Amino acid sequence: MARILVLNGVNLNLLGTREPEIYGPMKLSEMMDNLREQAQGHEVVDIQSNYEGCLVEAIQEAKKDGYDYIILNAGAWTHYSIAIRDAISAVDVPVIEVHLSNIQKRENFRHNSVLSAVVEGQIAGFGLYSYKMALFYIIEKLAQNKIGL
Amino acid sequence: MARILVLNGVNLNLLGTREPEIYGPMKLSEMMDNLREQAQGHEVVDIQSNYEGCLVEAIQEAKKDGYDYIILNAGAWTHYSIAIRDAISAVDVPVIEVHLSNIQKRENFRHNSVLSAVVEGQIAGFGLYSYKMALFYIIEKLAQNKIGL
Amino acid sequence: MARILVLNGVNLNLLGTREPEIYGPMKLSEMMDNLREQAQGHEVVDIQSNYEGCLVEAIQEAKKDGYDYIILNAGAWTHYSIAIRDAISAVDVPVIEVHLSNIQKRENFRHNSVLSAVVEGQIAGFGLYSYKMALFYIIEKLAQNKIGL
Amino acid sequence: MARILVLNGVNLNLLGTREPEIYGPMKLSEMMDNLREQAQGHEVVDIQSNYEGCLVEAIQEAKKDGYDYIILNAGAWTHYSIAIRDAISAVDVPVIEVHLSNIQKRENFRHNSVLSAVVEGQIAGFGLYSYKMALFYIIEKLAQNKIGL
Amino acid sequence: MARILVLNGVNLNLLGTREPEIYGPMKLSEMMDNLREQAQGHEVVDIQSNYEGCLVEAIQEAKKDGYDYIILNAGAWTHYSIAIRDAISAVDVPVIEVHLSNIQKRENFRHNSVLSAVVEGQIAGFGLYSYKMALFYIIEKLAQNKIGL
Amino acid sequence: MARILVLNGVNLNLLGTREPEIYGPMKLSEMMDNLREQAQGHEVVDIQSNYEGCLVEAIQEAKKDGYDYIILNAGAWTHYSIAIRDAISAVDVPVIEVHLSNIQKRENFRHNSVLSAVVEGQIAGFGLYSYKMALFYIIEKLAQNKIGL
Amino acid sequence: MARILVLNGVNLNLLGTREPEIYGPMKLSEMMDNLREQAQGHEVVDIQSNYEGCLVEAIQEAKKDGYDYIILNAGAWTHYSIAIRDAISAVDVPVIEVHLSNIQKRENFRHNSVLSAVVEGQIAGFGLYSYKMALFYIIEKLAQNKIGL
Amino acid sequence: MARILVLNGVNLNLLGTREPEIYGPMKLSEMMDNLREQAQGHEVVDIQSNYEGCLVEAIQEAKKDGYDYIILNAGAWTHYSIAIRDAISAVDVPVIEVHLSNIQKRENFRHNSVLSAVVEGQIAGFGLYSYKMALFYIIEKLAQNKIGL
Amino acid sequence: MARILVLNGVNLNLLGTREPEIYGPMKLSEMMDNLREQAQGHEVVDIQSNYEGCLVEAIQEAKKDGYDYIILNAGAWTHYSIAIRDAISAVDVPVIEVHLSNIQKRENFRHNSVLSAVVEGQIAGFGLYSYKMALFYIIEKLAQNKIGL
Amino acid sequence: MARILVLNGVNLNLLGTREPEIYGPMKLSEMMDNLREQAQGHEVVDIQSNYEGCLVEAIQEAKKDGYDYIILNAGAWTHYSIAIRDAISAVDVPVIEVHLSNIQKRENFRHNSVLSAVVEGQIAGFGLYSYKMALFYIIEKLAQNKIGL
Amino acid sequence: MARILVLNGVNLNLLGTREPEIYGPMKLSEMMDNLREQAQGHEVVDIQSNYEGCLVEAIQEAKKDGYDYIILNAGAWTHYSIAIRDAISAVDVPVIEVHLSNIQKRENFRHNSVLSAVVEGQIAGFGLYSYKMALFYIIEKLAQNKIGL
Amino acid sequence: MARILVLNGVNLNLLGTREPEIYGPMKLSEMMDNLREQAQGHEVVDIQSNYEGCLVEAIQEAKKDGYDYIILNAGAWTHYSIAIRDAISAVDVPVIEVHLSNIQKRENFRHNSVLSAVVEGQIAGFGLYSYKMALFYIIEKLAQNKIGL
Repeated sequence: MARILVLNGVNLNLLGTREPEIYGPMKLSEMMDNLREQAQGHEVVDIQSNYEGCLVEAIQEAKKDGYDYIILNAGAWTHYSIAIRDAISAVDVPVIEVHLSNIQKRENFRHNSVLSAVVEGQIAGFGLYSYKMALFYIIEKLAQNKIGL
Repeated sequence: MARILVLNGVNLNLLGTREPEIYGPMKLSEMMDNLREQAQGHEVVDIQSNYEGCLVEAIQEAKKDGYDYIILNAGAWTHYSIAIRDAISAVDVPVIEVHLSNIQKRENFRHNSVLSAVVEGQIAGFGLYSYKMALFYIIEKLAQNKIGL
Repeated sequence: MARILVLNGVNLNLLGTREPEIYGPMKLSEMMDNLREQAQGHEVVDIQSNYEGCLVEAIQEAKKDGYDYIILNAGAWTHYSIAIRDAISAVDVPVIEVHLSNIQKRENFRHNSVLSAVVEGQIAGFGLYSYKMALFYIIEKLAQNKIGL
Repeated sequence: MARILVLNGVNLNLLGTREPEIYGPMKLSEMMDNLREQAQGHEVVDIQSNYEGCLVEAIQEAKKDGYDYIILNAGAWTHYSIAIRDAISAVDVPVIEVHLSNIQKRENFRHNSVLSAVVEGQIAGFGLYSYKMALFYIIEKLAQNKIGL
Repeated sequence: MARILVLNGVNLNLLGTREPEIYGPMKLSEMMDNLREQAQGHEVVDIQSNYEGCLVEAIQEAKKDGYDYIILNAGAWTHYSIAIRDAISAVDVPVIEVHLSNIQKRENFRHNSVLSAVVEGQIAGFGLYSYKMALFYIIEKLAQNKIGL
Repeated sequence: MARILVLNGVNLNLLGTREPEIYGPMKLSEMMDNLREQAQGHEVVDIQSNYEGCLVEAIQEAKKDGYDYIILNAGAWTHYSIAIRDAISAVDVPVIEVHLSNIQKRENFRHNSVLSAVVEGQIAGFGLYSYKMALFYIIEKLAQNKIGL
Repeated sequence: MARILVLNGVNLNLLGTREPEIYGPMKLSEMMDNLREQAQGHEVVDIQSNYEGCLVEAIQEAKKDGYDYIILNAGAWTHYSIAIRDAISAVDVPVIEVHLSNIQKRENFRHNSVLSAVVEGQIAGFGLYSYKMALFYIIEKLAQNKIGL
Repeated sequence: MARILVLNGVNLNLLGTREPEIYGPMKLSEMMDNLREQAQGHEVVDIQSNYEGCLVEAIQEAKKDGYDYIILNAGAWTHYSIAIRDAISAVDVPVIEVHLSNIQKRENFRHNSVLSAVVEGQIAGFGLYSYKMALFYIIEKLAQNKIGL
Repeated sequence: MARILVLNGVNLNLLGTREPEIYGPMKLSEMMDNLREQAQGHEVVDIQSNYEGCLVEAIQEAKKDGYDYIILNAGAWTHYSIAIRDAISAVDVPVIEVHLSNIQKRENFRHNSVLSAVVEGQIAGFGLYSYKMALFYIIEKLAQNKIGL
Repeated sequence: MARILVLNGVNLNLLGTREPEIYGPMKLSEMMDNLREQAQGHEVVDIQSNYEGCLVEAIQEAKKDGYDYIILNAGAWTHYSIAIRDAISAVDVPVIEVHLSNIQKRENFRHNSVLSAVVEGQIAGFGLYSYKMALFYIIEKLAQNKIGL
Repeated sequence: MARILVLNGVNLNLLGTREPEIYGPMKLSEMMDNLREQAQGHEVVDIQSNYEGCLVEAIQEAKKDGYDYIILNAGAWTHYSIAIRDAISAVDVPVIEVHLSNIQKRENFRHNSVLSAVVEGQIAGFGLYSYKMALFYIIEKLAQNKIGL
Repeated sequence: MARILVLNGVNLNLLGTREPEIYGPMKLSEMMDNLREQAQGHEVVDIQSNYEGCLVEAIQEAKKDGYDYIILNAGAWTHYSIAIRDAISAVDVPVIEVHLSNIQKRENFRHNSVLSAVVEGQIAGFGLYSYKMALFYIIEKLAQNKIGL
């Protein structure tokens, strides 16, 4: 079975209370539990932090900790944290960038992701399903052992 | 059961022969057949055209033809066809924007999508799986009848 | 009597159903009929197409077909179709650019018209009356045979 | 009957003498008289000023003075007078922006109007007829009591 | 009585020693004490941190901790921390942005605040008095229970 | 006692009637009276004008007229009147820039103030309290005779 | 012998009538005949279309149809049709970009070609000779079987 | 003999008191008297105003008043008053743009003059001598009756 | 017979040794000899210099020296030497701009030519053939004595 | 008596033959002689070069050679030669920048001078009189021994 | 002897494993040891952190801790951390900015350093030698007690 | 032993007299002598020129002349001489870019180097030590025969 790391960045601990008209009423822990139900025996570990350094180190250690994939919602850092981008480039674990909301519909400064050029792909706009689609993809790929189909 | 329309834009008929290092070796028809296998009884119809007007009209008629969802890979038009954007805004059928490649890794002019602000969400970088993730999402949502979870 | 060609571009066939809060509840055919009622014996022919090439050729042939004036609502093409611009430059029939909505109140990309520098003038923001004002102008001018008053 | 205020901004008192190849040979007073002939019993009052403050106050007082519509040619102020824009936003009288010349054919700095986003619509490029089309529209609308057709 | 949280961001612990020609000779603790003297019985709590994550969490918890208002000097983060912006948007406590110096007189990159669009208002350029004016406002408003006067 | 000049620029005479959802229901004269009540014996004189030249000259003469401070709400001129900026630079009386609304929340062109770099500080977003905070500051400073605390 | 495809894009069917001061008095068919006279036994086939989709498909099929080289004058599409660019990238036939006029002498928007980075080279400004130089090059190269000399 | 109009714009009435390190210690009236001493019998009339409208009308009337040349220091209006630019274009009297200081050494916004493209030439950076050089030129040219030497 | 001047700018003396994967293995002198073989009796003189002033003067003197045409490869100066541009504008000898490589495929700063707007046309991307196509054109034109066909 | 150095940059040796509609029919040597006639006993030495290095060194040596003033027309270098700018900054001789034509009326790239911020002032648009005005200024100043009047 | 602080920012703990084709195969600790061998008795202390706040405080405390010089490799923070910039400005210890790779050869966003304007100098592109050159400089300067030679 | 070429560009011959507050009081020849003292038997040859062509050719010939390394201070050419950049790319001798001053602290146009992307590394801000650090690096590397450590 595979090990999958779900990283949630700054302010995502507020889910359920933060602007529910944008982010929905479900708490982060409920989201992560819902995701684990879909995991079909694969291990899904989630970490949330409001400290950039903490997220950077979680990415740095993902290889050593034996993770096969990272699902990353970097929150506001998506738009300026080159530090997180460099951490992604520096490790050998593939990363999928997810966003709850469709960031292209929001303020101009949210249209640009400094992370996108170093991840495998992006999924944005589907609420919790942005994570679930990433997990669906990982499980399918692992089952068929073929990437880049 | 639901009806899902998959729209493929300009040059996507070349899949399998066009720059396989970017787009992979699978033909478009094979991709669409693969997608239909995942459809769990839902109807999946696909249309490809190299004419902007044809794609615009396929979107226009999607409502009248009873489609519940559109999965759209607009190809190069993604970056300049405001006509397609307006067609999406004008009809009442939700649209998911998909891309085979991670367009953020490629030339600068591919980083901007004129469509993103009027679709439900985007999926980019997963090859055929970009379509499959969209279908997974639609089926799950229809099963649970809850959107914006 | 004069011959006047009214050209309606992409997605304008949806009028009456498309975003009525922006474009109003009247169908395109009703609009064109309404316009003809005002024509005072002049011939008013209208063409709508969702194909850029079709609109380009309608402009190209306007001279040969003996039209004295073109009223043009190019829809989304207003903002990027240099092909339509070149067709206007290439023929000898004066063109009036009209828009149903006030495009300066909408998204930034709608503020620029690639056509404006090669038309006689623009009218925007008056719904069907944008067309009717153009027709009023043409009839007055033809009656007095003086342009550029 | 309706009351219509025609406001002419800076340098428009020079019409007839100023760059006649752009603006035509007719004086402003002749233009305004010509316009009044078309008024069908409606009252058409015109004011010209070379003082921004004067134009601002004319707009401010238009409501109190019982005007139903303003036809505004702000001249050079079109391109920088946010003060006039704010006056338009602040009063409840609809404004139609007119220009004698097609400003999109001229210097780059004339392509942008700071007023457009707060007016009902724009008419540009038809000489005196830019005013006459505006008046035609107002009379028609008042007759039919329907706006936004 | 009300509870007011004063948040001081990165490098503000250096006040009194850091560039006194810009920021003045008074230490941060002296400033905060001076502020408390003005508080008229309201509780004024201040927190300083050089960690973005710490400031984010202080904002997140302000509601739960029963604060009525936040006075925020984000220091250098003012210009790039979208994380702090999102934290402000996510909680229900009004925020007043203050700056010791007039940031518009300094380097270009200091002219833009990514926070300003989500706060109630800004006060900049008055040294300690930027804080004191914010407190004056809060006390007055609480006394009169009228906002947006 | 001190003499304080409050200058209100273009369109501010409309307060109470102009867009009350932005500017509130209070008239300018009521605001100024309210301000004077807070003046603790200092003289507060206010001038409003819709003429840039008038405001420029009021600033020019402030020194000669013995004013100790100017509170300036330049309205729309904030964004383009370099003339007012130069008047501020030219006289020796300190100026505090105030705005009723939080201009950073509004249209892009309102985000830039051509005045900010030559004033002592800015206060924006607090309605009438923007003025009152300025007055509070002036009185405090005069009382303690210390600036730049 | 070689097979050479000459593709002429939108509005080029107007040659001889369209702005002869820019494009010259010769018709497109005369130009193409003139070109064939220079062909020294090589086959020169020409296609013109005003439909982007048609040009895209002509490029797509050039390989299958056994063409050795494409000479492409994309007209106005030069400046925005990423669809044509992608078709060029997708097929294995080398393309030479030609323009009748010196596009660098004309409007700013004509200075940029979205095609140039994917063609072998560009020739602009020599009227019919732009095509003839391309043909000269192809024949020479085929004769000597050396490219990139 | 010739008639020469010297126009001084906003804030130039402050000369001698305004930022003497930039503009020098001489009053405007002294400057104009000094200039007249150089006039060799030609008539030199000077007007200063802080009202844009006043300057516009002075330019408008210069022809009617029989002036042969205008020397214009528009002050801050140099950088934004398209109204003054249009007045210059509208009249038939040649204009020389002068500045006391070298505006290219000062703030960025002072580097651009909206007037320069419609005047005969510019002189900047020589204090009073900027005016005197303009007068020298006019007198020489009138004497020799040759322009554009 | 005609006289043709071939000017090669900075660093082109390195051809054959400089980045052969971009510029090919042939030396400049070999290239020029190859070109002369194609000259059909016309005189082809070539000059290379690494001094901008030298190239400027070669262009200046081309008229006096009786040249009918200049073929110019300005190398790096293409992108910034307005001096060379002005020399081209100043003399009456038509200039053809050539480049060995397709400059649109290379670094961004190579995409812009400051020369293009003042030459007859450009040829880029064909190695030595860029020169040979220019020569072909000149010979054909001289033979037929018709330009701008 | 004073020594004045007149430096003429690239292509100015062509005066009289180069684009006379812009630069006039007089040769450079005639211009310089004309200038010397005005010199009232001061020594006026002129140097022209098409080599940037030569102009740089002429500026470098001006101090050592005892010049009191430099009149500089840098021609095309005005717009990009930071080398000349640095030479001006490096020596202690004041420089007056002159241009024959009004560069603000010409192509956009001519609107910017990289030299302006380091010279005493600019004079542009008066043909030979641009030089003569500079000389007039120098002589007057030397006579009165007062600068910056 | 002197005390020198070497600060390594985010992700530099990965050296030796992170993209060795860019950063080389040596670990950070080996690098720092290598550096100390060059120290000639001076004390070299190194700190690495992935937390911006930690680096900020290390800079803040450097003075108090008696350091004479800081060698700073801020990693990704180089490009956005104004907080680190402000810390450098706030303390009195000179800082040398170093980079292992030549950041001007990499992605565009790495070309700008927000730190450069407040450090003594930069060294980039020499791997470990970037640090060693900094140390060489510090030792030489301390030995000769002359800076800014 | 190695041969090292030190190239000094435009205006660097003025060192010691040119703006000593920026560049220091030492003459260029003294600097070069000081550098040679550090050379430990390696040959250090220096060339200075104010002619771009001369510097280009010095770089071109460095290989043939057997130089192992170039230390280059291009002065003002750093910011625009693509010719020098191309010369560096064209030869096989590694180049180190040095600057006496910290160019990031100076005018905006000095922040960009067109050379940086083709050199091995940059050193800026250390006066003569910028050269000495480069020499230290070269000697160390040659001694250890390891690059890119």
